[in-house]
Amino acid sequence: MASIRDHLFDSSFLDQSIAYLAEAHKLAITVLDSDGATVASRRSEGSDTPTSRAYPFSFSSDIGSMVCGAPNPEQLEQAEPHIRYCLSALNSQLMRETELQETTEEMLQLASQMNFLFKVAKQIIGIDDLQKCYQIILEEIAKATKADQGFIQTKGRWDEEICVTHRMSEAEVAASRESSNLQRSAGVSTIICAREDGASLLYSPIKEKDGLSGQMLFIRALGHRAFSASEKQLVAIIENIISPTFETLRLYDSLQDLYLNTVKALAAAIDAKDQYTHGHSFRVAKYAMAIGGELGIDSQQLNDLEIAGYMHDLGKIGISELILGKPGKLTSEEFCLIQQHPVFTDKILQPIKLPPHILEGATQHHERMDGTGYPGGLVGMDISRFGRIIAVADVFDALTSKRPYRDALPVEEALQKLCEGIDTLFDREMILAFIAALQSDRSKEVLGEINMSLRHNDLQNLNHFLVELTEFAMTSKRD
Amino acid sequence: MASIRDHLFDSSFLDQSIAYLAEAHKLAITVLDSDGATVASRRSEGSDTPTSRAYPFSFSSDIGSMVCGAPNPEQLEQAEPHIRYCLSALNSQLMRETELQETTEEMLQLASQMNFLFKVAKQIIGIDDLQKCYQIILEEIAKATKADQGFIQTKGRWDEEICVTHRMSEAEVAASRESSNLQRSAGVSTIICAREDGASLLYSPIKEKDGLSGQMLFIRALGHRAFSASEKQLVAIIENIISPTFETLRLYDSLQDLYLNTVKALAAAIDAKDQYTHGHSFRVAKYAMAIGGELGIDSQQLNDLEIAGYMHDLGKIGISELILGKPGKLTSEEFCLIQQHPVFTDKILQPIKLPPHILEGATQHHERMDGTGYPGGLVGMDISRFGRIIAVADVFDALTSKRPYRDALPVEEALQKLCEGIDTLFDREMILAFIAALQSDRSKEVLGEINMSLRHNDLQNLNHFLVELTEFAMTSKRD
Repeated sequence: MASIRDHLFDSSFLDQSIAYLAEAHKLAITVLDSDGATVASRRSEGSDTPTSRAYPFSFSSDIGSMVCGAPNPEQLEQAEPHIRYCLSALNSQLMRETELQETTEEMLQLASQMNFLFKVAKQIIGIDDLQKCYQIILEEIAKATKADQGFIQTKGRWDEEICVTHRMSEAEVAASRESSNLQRSAGVSTIICAREDGASLLYSPIKEKDGLSGQMLFIRALGHRAFSASEKQLVAIIENIISPTFETLRLYDSLQDLYLNTVKALAAAIDAKDQYTHGHSFRVAKYAMAIGGELGIDSQQLNDLEIAGYMHDLGKIGISELILGKPGKLTSEEFCLIQQHPVFTDKILQPIKLPPHILEGATQHHERMDGTGYPGGLVGMDISRFGRIIAVADVFDALTSKRPYRDALPVEEALQKLCEGIDTLFDREMILAFIAALQSDRSKEVLGEINMSLRHNDLQNLNHFLVELTEFAMTSKRD
Repeated sequence: MASIRDHLFDSSFLDQSIAYLAEAHKLAITVLDSDGATVASRRSEGSDTPTSRAYPFSFSSDIGSMVCGAPNPEQLEQAEPHIRYCLSALNSQLMRETELQETTEEMLQLASQMNFLFKVAKQIIGIDDLQKCYQIILEEIAKATKADQGFIQTKGRWDEEICVTHRMSEAEVAASRESSNLQRSAGVSTIICAREDGASLLYSPIKEKDGLSGQMLFIRALGHRAFSASEKQLVAIIENIISPTFETLRLYDSLQDLYLNTVKALAAAIDAKDQYTHGHSFRVAKYAMAIGGELGIDSQQLNDLEIAGYMHDLGKIGISELILGKPGKLTSEEFCLIQQHPVFTDKILQPIKLPPHILEGATQHHERMDGTGYPGGLVGMDISRFGRIIAVADVFDALTSKRPYRDALPVEEALQKLCEGIDTLFDREMILAFIAALQSDRSKEVLGEINMSLRHNDLQNLNHFLVELTEFAMTSKRD
């Protein structure tokens, strides 16, 4: 219910006005709000005021009135022009106060939208993971609009659908998208509508250069108030301003994928030259990622580790297939040449300005903890983290693959051999992480396909074996 | 000079007030502004008003006064409380109007900043060229701040400096950056300062995740007014909101570069396996780009063409070095196998989801206009544009390179041979573009190094020859 109380920032002029009427015109003044409650009153001392009249404030709705009392009708009649002037001064003041209040609100709203944009912009600076970026934007909008649920659905790298959610299950997302009320109203602009069950929906399409690339939907649960116009405006603004970032991130993400796949394809082509190394780089990359995942490194680093894994044998381009594929024993010159492959890898990759950890990962996989490796003879922690990871992955794949002179070893035997090299050849941390990865559900996805092809007696036994091996790897003598 | 005129949106309450004083209190009222000019006046009819007094409006500065006249001092004295009340009503009104005006201005300014952000965001959607993006932002800010000159200097792909300018020479940019006034004031926030010569400078650092990545500077020429606080705010806002896009674009750009360089490095490694093809892919990519540049294709497409050039012989990974490097004549089986290299290229690249024009460029360079090429036997325009370009580049490099069975041909002879294949083997458009590229200054940069190593009699003669050859290529019989 509107009241004069809501329209006065500052009651000092009201006080001044009724004081004037009381003193200069000997009236008793009471200002009432629309409910009849007294807002202010004033009377000159000792006067009796049996006659009174109410003067309502002029406003779009009833906000209250000023009641003027006088000793007799004549005196009230006489004071009428002064009361009228006072009333118009108060009305004029009220109108300005209301306008000021509205404009201030509008301004504060704009300022808060701008602040919101700042806040979001600051948070997504330097994040190159599309999904994470969408999630941040989603959470921020949900917070700002006090939405109970929400999702952003848009295109990923290769136009595949990406969907990030805020307190919503996949089924709920699907059900909300299919809401026929929404279907009817959704177009190219931000809208508010009600779901069939009455929940308030705030919908915005996501635009890109060539049309729409997705949508955002926010839901306020049944029983809560509907979304407001200012919440709608906030979403429309963020969509407009953030769109270029969305689009660029998408481009970046697809290029990242293209890069990974190109390196992978080339590594596969190089591996394929030798029947014994077919698929080797792919498996090494996956094993390395399983170890990295177990160590808890972040997704960007995992991505880099994968690239390093694909690249680790690139230098073999520089070694004759006659030596690489030689069935018999190698001469010492031939073996020396093979040992040069990390040097060739380095030579090929050096001009690229790869991030150093990728380059080191790709070129240090034959270094060993005790310094007996090649080409650098690096010792212990002088070998980069990626190098120590890929060394374990590389040797495990070599052991579990068929060679001209031996069959592929079963998983258990290969792991046993790795464990024998703890601290001397391999980093204990990486071996433990690899065994943990083989046991963990998290790595099932990465190792799933590969595991299938690994020869081991049976899964139950393997798990039992892995537990024992972990015990051994953790307690084996440290040098 | 401030005046009551500037502080009243609406003079109706002023009119009402002086009418009230004139009618109810028999006064003569004149409202004067600070210069003494009459803003409004009112008197009751027929009355003489020899006694008068001025009541100034209360405001932070002199904005004028209300002069009240009465027939005698006693009457003026008697009206005093009413005049005082009227004055306070007017003062209160003036204060509200002023506040309203200020708030409205502030709001309009925020709204225009928001609109500006929208406009810029809309323009940079989908632009993946860093330099172009900066240029758009620069031009928009220069327009919005009415700057006469300006530049944005920031980091490019590999932290190298990128600088885009608005009506400024390099020397002017350098001079402005070295302004000691600016050096003294520049920090982590947007500032306005004056250059030594008095020109107004508006400076903003560009932030990224890990600190500053560049700066923007706008200059208002001598004699024009200095930049305003609202112009400064606009620049600060755009810097804050656009930063994530800057950062993402920079990431994208470096990845694009990394991609190009990785493919180039691998192509070089593959070429290097055979002494006769050393550097071949690099040169083919450059020749192809020279042709593409002459055809006027855009920078993104040129980038793709370069990648296709590097990739065109990747399939040779799949062919034994014994065949590739065989000194004598090949058997027909060996030749068949060599002809398979575009098929191998296709096999390697197929899973990558490369943009189709890159894949086609890489795999169709042995197709010929009359359908006698391989592996598809495609005819005429069924061969992709990139395929037709790379065919010319590839053959030109083969002809001008040494082979086991012949010396490298001089440029003239190689071009003559290409021209003989117009319409039958090669696309006339591409041959003409290549000859034009060899003549043009634009291609000097691309072909510079390569040109140096090409054997030709002398540059004067070559140019003369190219003119004649163009004539021939344009008029040779079409099938």
